[in-house]
Amino acid sequence: MTTVTSEAVLPGAAQRRVRGYASGKADYLVRLRKIEGQVRGVQRMIESDSWCPDVVVQIASATRALQEVVVGLVSDHLRHCVMAATKSSDDNGQAALDEVAGLIRQVARL
Amino acid sequence: MTTVTSEAVLPGAAQRRVRGYASGKADYLVRLRKIEGQVRGVQRMIESDSWCPDVVVQIASATRALQEVVVGLVSDHLRHCVMAATKSSDDNGQAALDEVAGLIRQVARL
Amino acid sequence: MTTVTSEAVLPGAAQRRVRGYASGKADYLVRLRKIEGQVRGVQRMIESDSWCPDVVVQIASATRALQEVVVGLVSDHLRHCVMAATKSSDDNGQAALDEVAGLIRQVARL
Amino acid sequence: MTTVTSEAVLPGAAQRRVRGYASGKADYLVRLRKIEGQVRGVQRMIESDSWCPDVVVQIASATRALQEVVVGLVSDHLRHCVMAATKSSDDNGQAALDEVAGLIRQVARL
Repeated sequence: MTTVTSEAVLPGAAQRRVRGYASGKADYLVRLRKIEGQVRGVQRMIESDSWCPDVVVQIASATRALQEVVVGLVSDHLRHCVMAATKSSDDNGQAALDEVAGLIRQVARL
Repeated sequence: MTTVTSEAVLPGAAQRRVRGYASGKADYLVRLRKIEGQVRGVQRMIESDSWCPDVVVQIASATRALQEVVVGLVSDHLRHCVMAATKSSDDNGQAALDEVAGLIRQVARL
Repeated sequence: MTTVTSEAVLPGAAQRRVRGYASGKADYLVRLRKIEGQVRGVQRMIESDSWCPDVVVQIASATRALQEVVVGLVSDHLRHCVMAATKSSDDNGQAALDEVAGLIRQVARL
Repeated sequence: MTTVTSEAVLPGAAQRRVRGYASGKADYLVRLRKIEGQVRGVQRMIESDSWCPDVVVQIASATRALQEVVVGLVSDHLRHCVMAATKSSDDNGQAALDEVAGLIRQVARL
């Protein structure tokens, strides 16, 4: 979780180089590949005329897994990228916090 | 939307052959392949250290698309499979309705 | 929200008199009064300038409790009212199932 | 829910006195009183044996309204309280950001 140095603007190019999920990247990729596999599995179920409630259970599982990824990403983002932004300057901090505020609606709508 | 004939038990083998999404199958598959592509796109975004809020927006979009598929599947299931089950016998109907009641929690938890 | 007038429309006046939650009515009322109290508690918290995350936790709790009520109501409805509708006639059954299919979107959006 | 005691803990007593919803307080109270009224209305509907799908629509409306309040509160909190915390000290800022990260799961679970 490197906070390279203080950056100029946000979400400008430099600031956006700080990545909160850098260390957990491999873990996120494993989870996303599993979700991708679940979505493919659902396609096979529909192709082979599986019983609809069984399909629904599979999709619900994939949806929850995606939601867990989102929760993790936003948490990491707050703890690392936003923290780094607030340290670099008040304007950067405010911009990063406003951006997350805008994300909350997306997360809540899940 | 084939309601082959009246079947014996539910969710027994015969009854479970009625498939509500039969006619919309191609449409569901198109949507699921698009979602699969979105999940792969998210993996590429993380691999290339994309800005976390951009990733979250993509995942939120995939999640909503999955939820739409679930809503469609459950609606189709009620209108066709459950309807067919209730016509075949009271026991089949009750079993099909109990099963959907059990699904509601999954759908609501999404 | 008058059911008086809607008694005249599908799925039929007589059918709509069957109430699935009749036996669990007292339980639903207890839960809803508790939720009402939680919503009043949230108002007091905001009036007294409580710390925002504490308020959010309270609202999240009330929201989940409402969601549990919805899940219970829809399940009861399927098991009793919809079952009764399907027994009374095919048209009543189809109308009741179509109505629940329309509800799924509401439930999933929660 | 006493903030009195929690004033003593992180992110610091002084910091927690900053309230992001101060300016919009009246608006939040109006919305919450309306939601409280909806929950009471749902009780009346159940008492008078209203048709279950009508009840579900009312609850779904109240739930969405609560969710909107949560989204507003968290956004305000990020823009004001968390911003203030990050300006007061790095430790306060980190504590405030960690706290919001912990909230995300609550918000997403709605």
